[in-house]
Amino acid sequence: MDTIGLGLIGTGFMGKAHALAYRAAPAVFGDLPGVRLACLCDQDAAVAAKMATQFGFESATADWRALITSPDVDIVAITSPNSLHFDMAMAAIAAGKHVHCEKPLSLTLDQARQMDAAARARGTKTMVGYNYTQNPAFRHAQRLIADGAIGTPVHFRGWVDEDYQADPDLPWSWRCTRAQAGLGTLGDLGCHLVSLAYGLMGPVESLIADTQIIHKTRPLPDGTGRAAVENEDTASAILRFASGAQGTLCTSRSAWGRKNRLDWEVHGTRGMLTFQQERLNELQLYVAEGPTATQGFRTILSGPAHAPYGEFCPAPGHQLGFGDLKTIEVANFLRWIAGGPPSMPTFTDALPFEAVIHSIDAAATSGQRVAL
Amino acid sequence: MDTIGLGLIGTGFMGKAHALAYRAAPAVFGDLPGVRLACLCDQDAAVAAKMATQFGFESATADWRALITSPDVDIVAITSPNSLHFDMAMAAIAAGKHVHCEKPLSLTLDQARQMDAAARARGTKTMVGYNYTQNPAFRHAQRLIADGAIGTPVHFRGWVDEDYQADPDLPWSWRCTRAQAGLGTLGDLGCHLVSLAYGLMGPVESLIADTQIIHKTRPLPDGTGRAAVENEDTASAILRFASGAQGTLCTSRSAWGRKNRLDWEVHGTRGMLTFQQERLNELQLYVAEGPTATQGFRTILSGPAHAPYGEFCPAPGHQLGFGDLKTIEVANFLRWIAGGPPSMPTFTDALPFEAVIHSIDAAATSGQRVAL
Amino acid sequence: MDTIGLGLIGTGFMGKAHALAYRAAPAVFGDLPGVRLACLCDQDAAVAAKMATQFGFESATADWRALITSPDVDIVAITSPNSLHFDMAMAAIAAGKHVHCEKPLSLTLDQARQMDAAARARGTKTMVGYNYTQNPAFRHAQRLIADGAIGTPVHFRGWVDEDYQADPDLPWSWRCTRAQAGLGTLGDLGCHLVSLAYGLMGPVESLIADTQIIHKTRPLPDGTGRAAVENEDTASAILRFASGAQGTLCTSRSAWGRKNRLDWEVHGTRGMLTFQQERLNELQLYVAEGPTATQGFRTILSGPAHAPYGEFCPAPGHQLGFGDLKTIEVANFLRWIAGGPPSMPTFTDALPFEAVIHSIDAAATSGQRVAL
Amino acid sequence: MDTIGLGLIGTGFMGKAHALAYRAAPAVFGDLPGVRLACLCDQDAAVAAKMATQFGFESATADWRALITSPDVDIVAITSPNSLHFDMAMAAIAAGKHVHCEKPLSLTLDQARQMDAAARARGTKTMVGYNYTQNPAFRHAQRLIADGAIGTPVHFRGWVDEDYQADPDLPWSWRCTRAQAGLGTLGDLGCHLVSLAYGLMGPVESLIADTQIIHKTRPLPDGTGRAAVENEDTASAILRFASGAQGTLCTSRSAWGRKNRLDWEVHGTRGMLTFQQERLNELQLYVAEGPTATQGFRTILSGPAHAPYGEFCPAPGHQLGFGDLKTIEVANFLRWIAGGPPSMPTFTDALPFEAVIHSIDAAATSGQRVAL
Repeated sequence: MDTIGLGLIGTGFMGKAHALAYRAAPAVFGDLPGVRLACLCDQDAAVAAKMATQFGFESATADWRALITSPDVDIVAITSPNSLHFDMAMAAIAAGKHVHCEKPLSLTLDQARQMDAAARARGTKTMVGYNYTQNPAFRHAQRLIADGAIGTPVHFRGWVDEDYQADPDLPWSWRCTRAQAGLGTLGDLGCHLVSLAYGLMGPVESLIADTQIIHKTRPLPDGTGRAAVENEDTASAILRFASGAQGTLCTSRSAWGRKNRLDWEVHGTRGMLTFQQERLNELQLYVAEGPTATQGFRTILSGPAHAPYGEFCPAPGHQLGFGDLKTIEVANFLRWIAGGPPSMPTFTDALPFEAVIHSIDAAATSGQRVAL
Repeated sequence: MDTIGLGLIGTGFMGKAHALAYRAAPAVFGDLPGVRLACLCDQDAAVAAKMATQFGFESATADWRALITSPDVDIVAITSPNSLHFDMAMAAIAAGKHVHCEKPLSLTLDQARQMDAAARARGTKTMVGYNYTQNPAFRHAQRLIADGAIGTPVHFRGWVDEDYQADPDLPWSWRCTRAQAGLGTLGDLGCHLVSLAYGLMGPVESLIADTQIIHKTRPLPDGTGRAAVENEDTASAILRFASGAQGTLCTSRSAWGRKNRLDWEVHGTRGMLTFQQERLNELQLYVAEGPTATQGFRTILSGPAHAPYGEFCPAPGHQLGFGDLKTIEVANFLRWIAGGPPSMPTFTDALPFEAVIHSIDAAATSGQRVAL
Repeated sequence: MDTIGLGLIGTGFMGKAHALAYRAAPAVFGDLPGVRLACLCDQDAAVAAKMATQFGFESATADWRALITSPDVDIVAITSPNSLHFDMAMAAIAAGKHVHCEKPLSLTLDQARQMDAAARARGTKTMVGYNYTQNPAFRHAQRLIADGAIGTPVHFRGWVDEDYQADPDLPWSWRCTRAQAGLGTLGDLGCHLVSLAYGLMGPVESLIADTQIIHKTRPLPDGTGRAAVENEDTASAILRFASGAQGTLCTSRSAWGRKNRLDWEVHGTRGMLTFQQERLNELQLYVAEGPTATQGFRTILSGPAHAPYGEFCPAPGHQLGFGDLKTIEVANFLRWIAGGPPSMPTFTDALPFEAVIHSIDAAATSGQRVAL
Repeated sequence: MDTIGLGLIGTGFMGKAHALAYRAAPAVFGDLPGVRLACLCDQDAAVAAKMATQFGFESATADWRALITSPDVDIVAITSPNSLHFDMAMAAIAAGKHVHCEKPLSLTLDQARQMDAAARARGTKTMVGYNYTQNPAFRHAQRLIADGAIGTPVHFRGWVDEDYQADPDLPWSWRCTRAQAGLGTLGDLGCHLVSLAYGLMGPVESLIADTQIIHKTRPLPDGTGRAAVENEDTASAILRFASGAQGTLCTSRSAWGRKNRLDWEVHGTRGMLTFQQERLNELQLYVAEGPTATQGFRTILSGPAHAPYGEFCPAPGHQLGFGDLKTIEVANFLRWIAGGPPSMPTFTDALPFEAVIHSIDAAATSGQRVAL
């Protein structure tokens, strides 16, 4: 396979992010196969055509099934609303295509498991859009932990907050329903945090949790009244990891001022690592060594010492952006498809991330500890 | 009562803090009664005498009961190890003295309740050393919330961490025992955070929690082996407040790099307030108003606009220190004793703070939700 | 002109940045003409061919003159070493090509003036790679100032520092020579800062300055001895702006720990704006209005409210990166070439930036005030 | 001399700061002589009496000459307006008293020199209130530099800004006159920065400079018109140090949002140290050693490892305040008077600080380089 054909479903926020990333990746990285932007799908054919021109796709369609079965398409990238992921991914897998699916895999854990099982059975390669795990600063944090820089990780704390549902006057939408949106902040944001927690701390064993609907109803857009919000605005969980470590996860979609907070800290027996997504090129490291008088948290700025930052820029401190993380994700997936090392996270890798958010929901509902 | 006589028990960290604060308060504030530093007690008579000279006390003793019953003493300030608070406070109350007691009130909630009941019965005035509640930045935060600056508070997060028990090689000490130290990080640090949570969010209704002993044994100082650590290194709780708000509390005494982290954030329906104790003169305020393009977290530096900062310094941004918070605490107590408005937190005010930390311990042990 | 042909000279740091940006721009922005990556030039033909494949160019050459005269090339982008800019730009202009030149325009102000005059005479469009002026946060700062958010700008301070020449043991290279590198830190870094100062404060009228060579000699790479460093490691200048404002510029290429510091503050009669390049998605705004008790510096995170951020990502706080600024630069240039509004900075715009750095050098040498 | 008698002139901002510090110092530090608060002077006898009671002075007077000649007074502390320092200090020295004088020593360098000469001739001990040099974080910075932690210091930058004269509508006052206030921001703020520059970099050899009056006239308080501002709102200087290092000093009293900015950075051949006064318990250290991937600026929080922090609090990160720095200053002076090591800065030490600010003024006026 000299050139890999991409079929992309969706032209919104994540659709554009994928388009730009697939376009950029082979030029950024010298070791990738070529990519053909084969087909772009949007449910609105005119939009599909327009954006295909803008993004540089060879063809456009409003029929995602046609995209999936196109012989020009090797990878199906799915950035549609979460409720559609399952059907699309299952069809793509059935067609023998590699699947690059946005998170969360599906609205239910059961569907996610079916998607994973199908891909494994069919032998197609998969990637889930947990793009924050692709950050060179995050990979460096993982290496530091693996190298023992902070001793044994014994405690974790993480937060993922935005404010897109903070306004009490925001109208009701499908995002407020279990049927169409599934979980609330856990599905939108929480699973990102879990992906990082797994990468830093390993598997979660069990948890207790609580959730909160802050705005219990919202005004209908047509002004005819108010409707109930069915999914959580905030969620909090206390975790026990398989390693014996403990920790907390907190998420809110109603946290004014937080635009993309996705912060964590790992407490080790010899040091501490912390990170803030809104300053995604910085890692804070405290190591308990040397004279007390000069110990302190060290701000490490991402640079070429943190691969693959150097593929974007040979000078440190020049800052990667959000889009660059997606480019790295794409590059890793392409490299695997072309015969390189497996990329992460696959559907299999991502299943536990999504199991955790559903377990948080279950624990909050039942009031009981839930084992993973 | 023209001049108030102070009897201070303890000459260590908190003992010195009290001595300096009682010495400073009448000079800082123009509206306070005079203070006589009447008597200083340390279990070691030589230390008591030496420190009495340094701190400016009129007399010294190794007998705390003598201090309490001295006619020169109007206020008994208790800064001894926590396990001694109960006996000392009960004796002081019985002697009709006002009591300024360091936190936590006692090792058990039952004793704390007895102390409170005794003081109320006897009519003596009480103050507990939750000094971080005296920070002008904190009081300003309370005013901002009361004034609706961030709308209705709906979510809270707080963390209080230090690293004094982070070192795996730290020898075993009495701090590791339930009998002598009571709770671990919850008693040392956690209750401070609860005092702030109450001041910002009001009463806690119920909670779930988990705790962790990271270092399960520690080496005996004499090198004869290792002994068990009986109390928690970390604790995490998810709270439901009486107001309907939710939130989390996290504490660790084994968090490398954290020297006096005592941070919180209050999520409101119209904004957000956050604070970090290691930058105790700064408050972060986000208000969802005005053009989106200029919204952001605002760093408010403490200054004369935040009473009683101006009593220390007429210029903003010049920074109060840890000791100044204790001076404010003392001033508020003296003012009440001299007939001014009641100061906070009294024993009665502090009881729920300590009920929360014991409830966290109970919830962690039982695995069940605990109602306050 | 339906599709614009790009000829890019250079495949290094800036060469790659241009390649990626020209590749991305039409997909990011929906209103641009198409771009053909027509020809890539590197002095090493094998490198040219390899990188042309990676970047997606149609052809490769080691002969920059051939690239310039190619009928497929409409824009010549020059990212070669600074000493080559002049010949290449003059040839491109002579060939009637639009020119996108990296900064500084040339080693001498005289050459820069010739380049500008030639382009104006020939009527070709020009763009200089002062990419930091393309940051949406910077453009927002300009709008805030224009709207009077901070009153009249009366004082400016700026710093641009890196540490690529901080190591005393770094070998001597062509960068240390006046003949090949021209100015030192002023040419590499200082002119970027001037471009921002102009955008915020308007023209500089006169200045005084001093410069410093910290490492007066450096070891020759072949170990045969040491050679002199001819150009400045640091430069400092005090400016008078035409508006009557004053300010300072400081730059160092030997400032350990600074990876891409390019920070500034604008003092206005009603407020203050500050910026740090290593946190390029943040702007700090202080406005002297409202109650004193809630005034403070506000951290504004870049988002869709700051065009054209939204073309990259519809969610605020997700962070643009270094490469995205270059993409905006390219988009603005392409839009102008396609008949849209003029982009900035042209050669004409950039001349005064470069005049300032040469004036700083002259003032430092002469010890006299230099008028611009 | 068992107990040292203090005569304090002034009851305003600095007067109170001195009173609190002399009151606190012997209790904070165990090695100091006793202090009698002997006499307090204010030009208003009623204020003097009232504040003497509040601060705990034995006597009060409106006659500073009586205070100086009182046999109970060993130290004369001068916190009156700057224009009065000279007469008071000269009289105190003539009376053989030790003198603790607020900065700047006087309005003119000539007077400052006379004060120094007189004290040296008479053999009385002197201290000038450059209190920021007493910060444990600053002393630690000095030790780090002396120990070579950042190699050789080669460049310095410093800023000292406030906003007390930022408001264009602020009425005219004596502060605007050369006769009564002397220099503007240089005298109020700039000399503090110079004191730090000297402590970090050693003597200044020569400088060039410029100054600016932003608000050229101000409204008269009685509404009868406007009057001229005679002294500078901002000043900027480029320094050459005797060591060969260079650097810049910038100051403004019209910098909105800056409440007590007094920041600096020292560039060394092996690292960098930076400090911000508004976070006075933090020092930033970058050392160019170890793997590139983990290098970064380290935030060192003040603690007991930075003497004499531990005298105030045995726990790190608990934060000293503005007043504590004055207490350290007083303690150092008392210790010297009682026979301990000389404290700094004496009048002799402070002369060059004040020479620098007058040289900046002279250089700005003449347009010429000024040698110190």
